Amino acid sequence: MLENVDLSKKLSKKDYDNVIDELQIHIGELQRKAWKMDIPVIIVFEGWHASGMTEIINRFLLALNPMGFDLYTTGKPCHQEEQKPLLWRFWIKIPKKGSIAIFDRSWYRRAIIEHDGKGKADSRMPKCLDGITYFERQLTDEGYLLIKFFLHVSKEEQERRYQELKRDGVPLFIVEEEELEYLNEYDRHLPMIEGILERTDRAHAPWTIIEAEDRNFATVKVLAKTIESIESKIVEVENTVKATQGHHPENCIIPNIDSSILEKVDMDKSLTFKEYKKQKKACQKKIAKLQYELFRNQIPLIVVFEGWDASGKGGGIKRFAQKLNPRLYRVTPVGVPSEYDLAHHYLWRFYNEIPEAGHIGIYDRSWYGRVLVERVEKLCNTHEWKRAYREINEFEETLTNYGAIIIKFWTHIDKGEQLNRFKQRENTAHKQWKITPDDWRNREKWDLYLNAADEMLQKTSTTRAPWTIVEANDKYYARIKILETIIERIESELEQRGLQ
Amino acid sequence: MLENVDLSKKLSKKDYDNVIDELQIHIGELQRKAWKMDIPVIIVFEGWHASGMTEIINRFLLALNPMGFDLYTTGKPCHQEEQKPLLWRFWIKIPKKGSIAIFDRSWYRRAIIEHDGKGKADSRMPKCLDGITYFERQLTDEGYLLIKFFLHVSKEEQERRYQELKRDGVPLFIVEEEELEYLNEYDRHLPMIEGILERTDRAHAPWTIIEAEDRNFATVKVLAKTIESIESKIVEVENTVKATQGHHPENCIIPNIDSSILEKVDMDKSLTFKEYKKQKKACQKKIAKLQYELFRNQIPLIVVFEGWDASGKGGGIKRFAQKLNPRLYRVTPVGVPSEYDLAHHYLWRFYNEIPEAGHIGIYDRSWYGRVLVERVEKLCNTHEWKRAYREINEFEETLTNYGAIIIKFWTHIDKGEQLNRFKQRENTAHKQWKITPDDWRNREKWDLYLNAADEMLQKTSTTRAPWTIVEANDKYYARIKILETIIERIESELEQRGLQ
Repeated sequence: MLENVDLSKKLSKKDYDNVIDELQIHIGELQRKAWKMDIPVIIVFEGWHASGMTEIINRFLLALNPMGFDLYTTGKPCHQEEQKPLLWRFWIKIPKKGSIAIFDRSWYRRAIIEHDGKGKADSRMPKCLDGITYFERQLTDEGYLLIKFFLHVSKEEQERRYQELKRDGVPLFIVEEEELEYLNEYDRHLPMIEGILERTDRAHAPWTIIEAEDRNFATVKVLAKTIESIESKIVEVENTVKATQGHHPENCIIPNIDSSILEKVDMDKSLTFKEYKKQKKACQKKIAKLQYELFRNQIPLIVVFEGWDASGKGGGIKRFAQKLNPRLYRVTPVGVPSEYDLAHHYLWRFYNEIPEAGHIGIYDRSWYGRVLVERVEKLCNTHEWKRAYREINEFEETLTNYGAIIIKFWTHIDKGEQLNRFKQRENTAHKQWKITPDDWRNREKWDLYLNAADEMLQKTSTTRAPWTIVEANDKYYARIKILETIIERIESELEQRGLQ
Repeated sequence: MLENVDLSKKLSKKDYDNVIDELQIHIGELQRKAWKMDIPVIIVFEGWHASGMTEIINRFLLALNPMGFDLYTTGKPCHQEEQKPLLWRFWIKIPKKGSIAIFDRSWYRRAIIEHDGKGKADSRMPKCLDGITYFERQLTDEGYLLIKFFLHVSKEEQERRYQELKRDGVPLFIVEEEELEYLNEYDRHLPMIEGILERTDRAHAPWTIIEAEDRNFATVKVLAKTIESIESKIVEVENTVKATQGHHPENCIIPNIDSSILEKVDMDKSLTFKEYKKQKKACQKKIAKLQYELFRNQIPLIVVFEGWDASGKGGGIKRFAQKLNPRLYRVTPVGVPSEYDLAHHYLWRFYNEIPEAGHIGIYDRSWYGRVLVERVEKLCNTHEWKRAYREINEFEETLTNYGAIIIKFWTHIDKGEQLNRFKQRENTAHKQWKITPDDWRNREKWDLYLNAADEMLQKTSTTRAPWTIVEANDKYYARIKILETIIERIESELEQRGLQ
């Protein structure tokens, strides 16, 4: 993509002055329009060192209302960022609806630096690029507009500019000390960069190469391309709105499921209190030790609890956490998303909550809400929850690629047992707050939830992140199964990785 | 406070089992009550190494609903935290109304580590403790409940526990590698810790010493003290509500101002376009160089723009930012606070926006909103805005103690000039969005705003952070005065610090 670019394109000062005001006013208008239409925009600036990026970005920013954008400069990851998957720091920065996020260097730069094996991509690069593809497609699927610029200058021009910066006493690298070694590496990097640009030049997220030897020309091209992209996104959104006008909201289609996984669950399994107490003690002791193995090996552990209301998720979590070190775990209860959550991609709030390396994230309900409650209660449309199976599998793939162990529990009780427990809650003073009208309403939709759970279990049980169904009519049995499953998974993962 | 503590206090396993369930249920109820009453709670755990803190905290956490609290473990600051004042990382973590934030180690631990000169506090410790006092008082003034525990064990017990941990293979320091050197320093630290505890044991934020040699006793005391504190806070809030019932909302009392600063401003100052253009170019060039001086010396610069609607704040900011490196500055427009902002101390959102060392934070309106628009429009009560002068001065003192340069502009126009500009905005297609009914409404309250601005200028112009009044009837004059003031202040600060 870079080989045949004509780098001689220029714009005189006079031509520039003539068009720049127009473009700036135009882009300001589009920014307000996108804001009103709730369109989120992400603009990526990549390019060679000394391609004039900072100046071009600054000219671009001055056209925008500061109320509506954020600029993020991507430097060396901080300690916290190092403890998370590469894309984490970008996921948590995606703009809310109507806003613009501008990335001065982005995930591409990080991918290059972290997977550069002497000028060639190392063996983990393909997986990394897969992750980037998921990320970008998930965003554009959800309505994000993604504009990607690569600022291109020749090797000779780059060299000339290094001399100029040096002469003017401008510090060469404000945020990227680690990159000093990348100076004078133009030729070495060219093929790798070419390859990455080609592989990630997708219809939903195309690259625009900016001929950046002349800054006026580059500024104008960046502005013009941004205007064009936002304008066509606006037209697209307007057409979608028109196309769906007059239609009734989509019905929740219940898919044909050949066989129900949950129907076959044996609900009679149980343990005596004595057996339970003994086994609990032994398991908790074991888990208390294993947490330090995870910490020492910097392996994050993610434990998801999904299941019926009153099926013992909280009780299971409590027994799991009881002997853990609070510095190493965190329970994230997942409830109704806030307005601010809703203004982002639905995975955004979960990216904000993933545990760092060596830590344990425990989820009381989770990202599966989209294919359970959001599906059944029609809080999202059919298209959105159907898409979510793939998105969730990709999300979990990103986490396991990063080294995480994922354990997922479905705590399963039958309808009669749930009724007993609801009544018990209503009759116990300090448990009454746990039972709400919502719980009774959900109960009426038992069959819809059953269907949804069944489909979820089938479509998201992967080798890397399998579901465990917990027979939970008997609390003692359920808690021990949870603890034992956790122990087994951690031990077998440690073994597979040659750590035990 | 530690010398005469009886460390022999104990609780048998049986006594513990008898009370713990009760206490846990009780604290769960209080948590829900505080949540409904919008009471924010901060709980600080400090204490000796190996005082059993993690276990005691974990037992405490298990009594709480995870939906309503956050646990923060305070370790070594990350890169971003190092670039901010010591209290920044805690300010941004204060809970929203109704929530509980638990700090496993806190600002006290950081103060000790960062100001420890061989067992004695270094010369900056008193300033640091002043900052902590401001912080805690500002929070409790705003209705936060602050509970501080110090877990105390003897030197002998500590030594015994180190051996125990070592034997069990528990990693000694999960988050605080830097602290390894603090092991075996009990005697050396005792007097310093004593001094800090005494100095920060205030009525609004008292310390509770926990005898922690017996973990059951310690857990029960922590729970009981927390219950007692939340209960008395609830009573206090209920009484306040009762006392104010039936009262009409307070009127905005206009203070007697002996002399108006703004009345004396010479509104006729002006520049020709030619003078302006020439001086602008020179100033911008100078500023572009100075930004790198600030960066090299890691000095943060804070530039605040306050002033009448249409007085040229945006224009001034634009000319200031035009030749800056976008990696080094950020414009923060301050508008109506979000619901989430309002659920915190009003300074919280500004702590979230302070520039890191070497960077420039530009504010289009600011924390002065509380004594301007919030005062005039009665968005806060009299007590709150009157308290704000001190809070703002303390906030700016915290920033300058950290090394920041603070420059504050009041752009001043007269009422006639404002009318001209409003009309001009209404008549220019691409400027119409800038003028709203709010602007016209504010204009009707000109005199109230004038009074508020006058009092603000008198009460918050300090040596460390003086106000500059900009005669802004003539845009050219105003912009140059802004640029020149910025240059002068930076240069004189660099000189004073021996950096130029």
